[in-house]
Amino acid sequence: MTDRDRPEVHMQRAIALSRMHMEAGDGGPFGAVVVRQGIVVGEGWNRVTSANDPTAHAEIMAIRDACRRLETFTLAGCDLYTSCEPCPMCLAATYWARIDRLYFANTRDDAASIGFDDAFLYGEIGKPLSVQAMPIQRILGAEARVVFDAWMAKDDKIPY
Amino acid sequence: MTDRDRPEVHMQRAIALSRMHMEAGDGGPFGAVVVRQGIVVGEGWNRVTSANDPTAHAEIMAIRDACRRLETFTLAGCDLYTSCEPCPMCLAATYWARIDRLYFANTRDDAASIGFDDAFLYGEIGKPLSVQAMPIQRILGAEARVVFDAWMAKDDKIPY
Repeated sequence: MTDRDRPEVHMQRAIALSRMHMEAGDGGPFGAVVVRQGIVVGEGWNRVTSANDPTAHAEIMAIRDACRRLETFTLAGCDLYTSCEPCPMCLAATYWARIDRLYFANTRDDAASIGFDDAFLYGEIGKPLSVQAMPIQRILGAEARVVFDAWMAKDDKIPY
Repeated sequence: MTDRDRPEVHMQRAIALSRMHMEAGDGGPFGAVVVRQGIVVGEGWNRVTSANDPTAHAEIMAIRDACRRLETFTLAGCDLYTSCEPCPMCLAATYWARIDRLYFANTRDDAASIGFDDAFLYGEIGKPLSVQAMPIQRILGAEARVVFDAWMAKDDKIPY
């Protein structure tokens, strides 16, 4: 039996983390695990308020934990289980980490119903920059482009 | 003269970080700074390949650095300067951090031209989950919802 025949076991761990660390006062009620070939290789939970880190969402922490343990910056071949549908930050992080498959339990609407901005964020991220809620302005494009050209010319770069 | 009268100074620092740390082999050519009332309170650069962390983009690192230094999880009152238009992960992180205003230099198309997936990601993040490039599946929604209800009932929670 492969791991993907029993995703509920891993999701139950993600949900258990969400409860345990919420009760401990670490942050919001969110947990996540990274699984490779049936083995949990990373765990995370929300630590925004306790770690003073607005990026410390459960999925980000689980990805960082797995990469640290596996000594890699790519999690191809791994699945991510999260107790709530990822916000756009975490969904994009899942792509950057090259996760194979994503499982979630609560939805973005569940998150909205307990006071989290995920639904608002999904709306903003899809808009053109000129109409985002946050003012965004482009400056010094030409100066920055020179560094991109230097990256292209760099012999020993590590692509990712 | 307020800080917002001279955004070029801070962007030049972000661009300098992008070059310095690319040349040092820390990761891709990206730098960012967080500024409050004219003072740099956080700096970041891409460390994906050197730190084995796919979430270690310049903006995320700058936000984390500023929050650590200021001992807070909210950067309301701060601006973020980044040498390249943020990917969806970093744009969402900017919202979660409550950044006031965002300045960027290179665009997502510049990033695509040197081999980074930002444009692809913007396409995916906006799609319904059912048609994302990554397979995504919902399981155990009812079990997870119970923990959200426990969060709502928690007396000593810290909202964010």
